[in-house]
Amino acid sequence: MSGHQPTPDGTPMVTKILADWVVTTQTKDIPAEVREEGLRTFVNWVGCAVGGASHETADAALRAVMPFSGPRSATVLGRTEKLDIFHAALVNGITSHVLDYDDTHLKTIIHPAGPVASALLALAETRPMSGEDFLTAMIIGIEVECRIGNSVYPHHYDRGWHITGTAGVFGAAAAVGKAIGLSPQQMRWAFGLAASQSSGFREMFGTMTKSFHPGSAAKNGLLAAIMAEAGFDSSERALEAPRGWAFTTSDKQDWSEIVGDLGVTWESALNSYKPFACGIVIHPTIDGCIQIREEIGDKVNEIASVALTTHPLVLELTGKRDPKTGLEGKFSVFHSAACALLRGDGAPTAFTDEIVTAPDIVALRDTIIATADPTCHEASVDIVVTFKDGTTLHKHVARAIGSSDVPLTNEQIDTKFTVQSALVIGEEATKKLLELAWKTATLSDVSDVARASVHDVKGQAAAE
Amino acid sequence: MSGHQPTPDGTPMVTKILADWVVTTQTKDIPAEVREEGLRTFVNWVGCAVGGASHETADAALRAVMPFSGPRSATVLGRTEKLDIFHAALVNGITSHVLDYDDTHLKTIIHPAGPVASALLALAETRPMSGEDFLTAMIIGIEVECRIGNSVYPHHYDRGWHITGTAGVFGAAAAVGKAIGLSPQQMRWAFGLAASQSSGFREMFGTMTKSFHPGSAAKNGLLAAIMAEAGFDSSERALEAPRGWAFTTSDKQDWSEIVGDLGVTWESALNSYKPFACGIVIHPTIDGCIQIREEIGDKVNEIASVALTTHPLVLELTGKRDPKTGLEGKFSVFHSAACALLRGDGAPTAFTDEIVTAPDIVALRDTIIATADPTCHEASVDIVVTFKDGTTLHKHVARAIGSSDVPLTNEQIDTKFTVQSALVIGEEATKKLLELAWKTATLSDVSDVARASVHDVKGQAAAE
Repeated sequence: MSGHQPTPDGTPMVTKILADWVVTTQTKDIPAEVREEGLRTFVNWVGCAVGGASHETADAALRAVMPFSGPRSATVLGRTEKLDIFHAALVNGITSHVLDYDDTHLKTIIHPAGPVASALLALAETRPMSGEDFLTAMIIGIEVECRIGNSVYPHHYDRGWHITGTAGVFGAAAAVGKAIGLSPQQMRWAFGLAASQSSGFREMFGTMTKSFHPGSAAKNGLLAAIMAEAGFDSSERALEAPRGWAFTTSDKQDWSEIVGDLGVTWESALNSYKPFACGIVIHPTIDGCIQIREEIGDKVNEIASVALTTHPLVLELTGKRDPKTGLEGKFSVFHSAACALLRGDGAPTAFTDEIVTAPDIVALRDTIIATADPTCHEASVDIVVTFKDGTTLHKHVARAIGSSDVPLTNEQIDTKFTVQSALVIGEEATKKLLELAWKTATLSDVSDVARASVHDVKGQAAAE
Repeated sequence: MSGHQPTPDGTPMVTKILADWVVTTQTKDIPAEVREEGLRTFVNWVGCAVGGASHETADAALRAVMPFSGPRSATVLGRTEKLDIFHAALVNGITSHVLDYDDTHLKTIIHPAGPVASALLALAETRPMSGEDFLTAMIIGIEVECRIGNSVYPHHYDRGWHITGTAGVFGAAAAVGKAIGLSPQQMRWAFGLAASQSSGFREMFGTMTKSFHPGSAAKNGLLAAIMAEAGFDSSERALEAPRGWAFTTSDKQDWSEIVGDLGVTWESALNSYKPFACGIVIHPTIDGCIQIREEIGDKVNEIASVALTTHPLVLELTGKRDPKTGLEGKFSVFHSAACALLRGDGAPTAFTDEIVTAPDIVALRDTIIATADPTCHEASVDIVVTFKDGTTLHKHVARAIGSSDVPLTNEQIDTKFTVQSALVIGEEATKKLLELAWKTATLSDVSDVARASVHDVKGQAAAE
């Protein structure tokens, strides 16, 4: 049995070390700036979950699972329906990702909050916890998720895995395991149960199943911790064993990315928040095109063609030439550039079926050529616009807005939150929800935030 | 987007072909001998699910999920608890596998019924179906599961995947999708949703999480079909796309194993049923040791040492030298051989904590040497016993009982069913359940079988 063979030379007891760290880390062990980034992560996530709540993807998921829900103790953010904690975790994970507007750990392209916060907030509605304890568990879960992602990235992702799903389930299990007080051994079992539910493929990009991945990771990570608590055992070496998760799903395993400087350096503090509602690799292009529009005004109507020079991942992930739907538009750098030039928009409103098929945008999109350049930084782009009179304009974006070098300010997070949330629950409820979310660290019961996300509770949105 | 790239040269539209076949295949298209094997598969599965129902693994799973159950419409076979269909599928998938006594598709070592029958029978308790329709959907699901397994075996398995979990989820989705009448497109989506829940690692062998794999596959395949029915879309090329399931999880992809002779040759008819309650690779050894015991009687107490020559997979999977628990004993060819020689037993009673630590068995087990021989057939073993007086006995098993060349008779399936079921629900209820299970093809409501598996319903086990 591989689970009991001697550890191969040089392989640390990764699962044990990580489980011990999860169990023993306290709020006081987390530096203030890391906690502050955790709060920004949570606020951004709440806005995205509410923003996505009215999407047809959420409707379809709810149609499927509503008849089978257990005790309806957990809120579907932004909606009046309630579900059992597993299904609420699933649906909130879906809605927070469906607009491709959530957070990003840039080193792995993991969207950290979806799997972790969705599981933990659903749990909090049956096992009350303070906002401070919630943030501690969430930060620990995100740290686990991103470190595990780092250990196998990029091979794991290149192979085809949607790493938000595959690494996310460990983050959800860690956060919930921390919150419910698992023992070190139970935490190791929870990682084993999480591993055996780890899945999600990049092939699903452009379909509803992409959003299913963080939702499923949330639901499954929650189940892993709940089962481990009940004594359901598992391998205690799920991550590093020869036939465990890392060797089976990747040809790269860098254990130092998991156990090195654990509790000293913080991946969770590197989280970033999307200014635009699509895959992060297109953001430099949208940023640059919006800058061009602001510079040239009506002259955008005189553009004859556009040439983009981008990081190779841009075309690999978002090379769709002829998108037909809003969802497909998120995977088209051509649509995104045309819409940014002609509408100045990269918010969810830029990725509706109507905008993606608007004749002027389609016409401009068809003139755009994109070239992959391996020397181009992921947060950069080079744009050359040629006008009908033969003149050209050159725009270089060194680091896009929302990248680690140009992080969104709290005010920009507020704006992003408000723009998407107000469309779903109205401006008044949005304002109260946003205020409450920023106060999370001081709440005696974090689930107040979940309840405040529903706009029609006797006209009183925020629990005050 | 990989989902819309041209199909690579030579790659057939595997997902589409398979989905079309699932949707269009009718009962009349399935040959009588395939249907007969399907019935044997179902009867064997029911016995195993009831037999495993009192195991501590089932207790732990139920402790975890009971508080979160939705409408309790589905039976946990062999127990009085009922659960919503997802959780019932999970627990029945666990119990039917926990004794390592279930069925085996020998070409892939998939245990086919667990994922498929567990999902389908749970569904049948909310969406009534005849026994005939049930068997048709179950056979189709098993066919899908085993063909998908064939397409990536052995690389996928060698890499570390527990193929019963990873391929099983597709079988469950296919069976449920057939039963609820998905359209061809919905069936393709269901395969996409199944892919993105496909998981399970060989590292978990020897722990409760091994049994979790078929249960999780049942639950997740059921969810895939239910979500597709609700309009939750997915890739329509989940199996064969460049970043889809087969390329991501395996370095081998043989599409002809999936689409070749579909509906002409039947993998589901190759199913086999374990005579012994442990990994199938040890079965030749147990068979041979029981034969030796029957030949030499009390002289088993005069054995000085035993030398086994086996297929290499035997030591890789069951090479545990020093098992401490019943569950670990299943992964020890050494314990299994000693117990077969000294007790003549390979049933679940041979794999209790007490038997695994019995001094005489431990003493004999320590004298056993096993040698891997790549030329040895998987269903064969060579055994040389050396007695204390220096004499030796040689036993060669060409093909073990339960292998495809020496299938269990229906009477042997009856005996196996009765031995394990009677311990859980008593002899009278077992007799009625067994009779009813053999009549499945004629039942107007297949869920009668589920209800008949519970022994204490007013002393009336079988629904007659």
